[in-house]
Amino acid sequence: MRTTDHVATFATDRGQLVIGGVPLDRLCERVGSTPFFAYDRAAITARVAAVRAALPDEIGLGYAVKANPMPAVVQHVAALVDHLDVASAGELAVALDAGQHPAHVSFAGPGKTDAELRRAVAADVTVEVESRTELQRLVRTGKEFGVRPRAAIRVNPAFAVHGSGMRMGGGPQQFGVDAELVASVLGEVTDHDIEVVGFHVFAGSQNLSAEILGQAQTKTVDLVLDLAQHVRGSVTYVNLGGGFGIPYFEKDQRLDLEAVGERLGRLVDERLKPALPEAAVVIELGRYLVGESGVYVTRVVDVKESRGRAYAVVDGGMHHQLAASGNFGQVIRRNYPIALGNRVEESPTGPVTVVGSLCTPLDVLGADVALPQVEVGDLVTIFQAGAYGLTASPTAFLGHPPPAEVLI
Amino acid sequence: MRTTDHVATFATDRGQLVIGGVPLDRLCERVGSTPFFAYDRAAITARVAAVRAALPDEIGLGYAVKANPMPAVVQHVAALVDHLDVASAGELAVALDAGQHPAHVSFAGPGKTDAELRRAVAADVTVEVESRTELQRLVRTGKEFGVRPRAAIRVNPAFAVHGSGMRMGGGPQQFGVDAELVASVLGEVTDHDIEVVGFHVFAGSQNLSAEILGQAQTKTVDLVLDLAQHVRGSVTYVNLGGGFGIPYFEKDQRLDLEAVGERLGRLVDERLKPALPEAAVVIELGRYLVGESGVYVTRVVDVKESRGRAYAVVDGGMHHQLAASGNFGQVIRRNYPIALGNRVEESPTGPVTVVGSLCTPLDVLGADVALPQVEVGDLVTIFQAGAYGLTASPTAFLGHPPPAEVLI
Repeated sequence: MRTTDHVATFATDRGQLVIGGVPLDRLCERVGSTPFFAYDRAAITARVAAVRAALPDEIGLGYAVKANPMPAVVQHVAALVDHLDVASAGELAVALDAGQHPAHVSFAGPGKTDAELRRAVAADVTVEVESRTELQRLVRTGKEFGVRPRAAIRVNPAFAVHGSGMRMGGGPQQFGVDAELVASVLGEVTDHDIEVVGFHVFAGSQNLSAEILGQAQTKTVDLVLDLAQHVRGSVTYVNLGGGFGIPYFEKDQRLDLEAVGERLGRLVDERLKPALPEAAVVIELGRYLVGESGVYVTRVVDVKESRGRAYAVVDGGMHHQLAASGNFGQVIRRNYPIALGNRVEESPTGPVTVVGSLCTPLDVLGADVALPQVEVGDLVTIFQAGAYGLTASPTAFLGHPPPAEVLI
Repeated sequence: MRTTDHVATFATDRGQLVIGGVPLDRLCERVGSTPFFAYDRAAITARVAAVRAALPDEIGLGYAVKANPMPAVVQHVAALVDHLDVASAGELAVALDAGQHPAHVSFAGPGKTDAELRRAVAADVTVEVESRTELQRLVRTGKEFGVRPRAAIRVNPAFAVHGSGMRMGGGPQQFGVDAELVASVLGEVTDHDIEVVGFHVFAGSQNLSAEILGQAQTKTVDLVLDLAQHVRGSVTYVNLGGGFGIPYFEKDQRLDLEAVGERLGRLVDERLKPALPEAAVVIELGRYLVGESGVYVTRVVDVKESRGRAYAVVDGGMHHQLAASGNFGQVIRRNYPIALGNRVEESPTGPVTVVGSLCTPLDVLGADVALPQVEVGDLVTIFQAGAYGLTASPTAFLGHPPPAEVLI
């Protein structure tokens, strides 16, 4: 079995992995240095199209910029989706620079500073409010400007979604307003002070089960319909979250997108739209739209054997792709899919442990990976690197140069 | 019990923590923004003095720049120690800019690129060679320049050190040359091509037991004496590593520095120096010299309660201090020592969960910490932040601004 069997298939050309139509050896020359992240423009376009095809037409598609905030990626995705979600003033600037209309930008995240709220109000984006006091601060900011801010309430539901990579709802949470407090929080502001357009409920991320996602969406719609009675005007915005996962590990089963779409279609047609006909319904995806489009490419600098174990030492490492090293909040270290991108058609000859250039034992990119005989100069390619790669990594650790990024 | 009882005592003034002689409220104004890292110059000086006092005079003290590569810190430490160890060309530049003589700089790390080797040879620092092939590449680089490079062999010992935070020796490793291969590796180069000055054996880091460190040092000296016979000239450099730990958690017992010094004194006087009289013996410390001198300071932006749990949301987070969030390779999340730096003398009123501003459930800086009643504007202070803080964190994650750094 090839180690790449469970990842989206990239084309190959004379043994080279092809990214964005360019064989890897040539892409290295074009980028000019290793290591680098490469994102395939057509793969992103195709993924968005697949999601569009599976989801009912009346559902808007949002992109969570935090998954990959490279400006070129955001620019590309912005033209394909209906909505951008940002998690900081920095991401807000990227979204606006990409030409996204502020009415279709939402700003979520606990701990927004006064400076961030001012920038959001000045930009006229929708602020997803995370607490009672944040709502008050937002109203105050609007009054200072003589602007009526636009807000949605981010809700911490009472239910939890199991089987998610990360749980972001249920029980006590730093995110959002507890569902049972929404009525009282909304009661403290007037329609004159602020326009409350609706709700955002996001219960978890990286889920591979259509069944569980469907159950969560059903509960989410029930919750939103219940909360909608406390909104004075029309509910014009309902963000159902996302949480669609991608396969990282050999036993991961790919999410059944069609099943997700069918359930969601029924839910929206039969329940949500009849009750809230003016609501723009948004599914917000980050990792699912861009994660599989990207690879991290790093060159083998040294090959060595130590007491019976073969090592390939590369010029990159955990400082660029922390999650692949298993050190980003993971309890168990498992290998991300890895191949030799310059010799993808060769059969594995034995296990090789791929380590980065950092002087720390944490810097393992792949333990005992089945690879062809590795040589100095080979291009180790780590898949599923299009989301939460570069920006989720400690690039300054040990003072090596940052990697390049390219969208092809 | 105060949560800070197990960390080095900073002075207080009118309820403010004092860093480098400056009360925290005033320091915030001086820095101009939160969050920030503050390092206490006098605390670093005092720690170096304590190590000097405990270690025998004939032992040189090295600083591992990777622990904290802030140029001002490196400049300060360089004037106090005998040796700097760097782990990349980036750190090499910082060390040389700090005025360190190249003869007292060593460059370790697997995966050194040809470009890095060229820079090291051009700078005339000691290259700590991590493999047979790296030694060959170093010789080749020297020939290209007409320069005889200076190298030490980094050795992967056959023994492991237990009780270390990270094990870097014993069994198969990406680091160094396996001890049993050193003779053959050295046999492949000539004294004309390269000057091999000695050895570096580093078996583990973050160890709090003088007993275990002593055993490791004894084994290390035995190993070095055995390997020394394969060096053609005199052995003039023996880097015994370091691995001295600092207390992070409530039950951590502080390392008995005097006991370490006594054992090491006997070992060097009775064993090492008689056999290798010309050797400069170096103990290389990073975290131990600077870790306790630093605090991470972040301001409370929001206070909320969710289903019975109190939260303080701060303007910083895991993107600045990843290790404190428990997501940097740690299996079990435990709180780093935390206080309200602007109200250090007040008694705790109850548990508060301190979360960062990132829109991810990973961003917890302290779970259920006993703190005084937290208010918006308070300054949450995380101790033991002088090493592996800023540079070991994914600063670009979610697009928030980077923190400031100050040495006072």
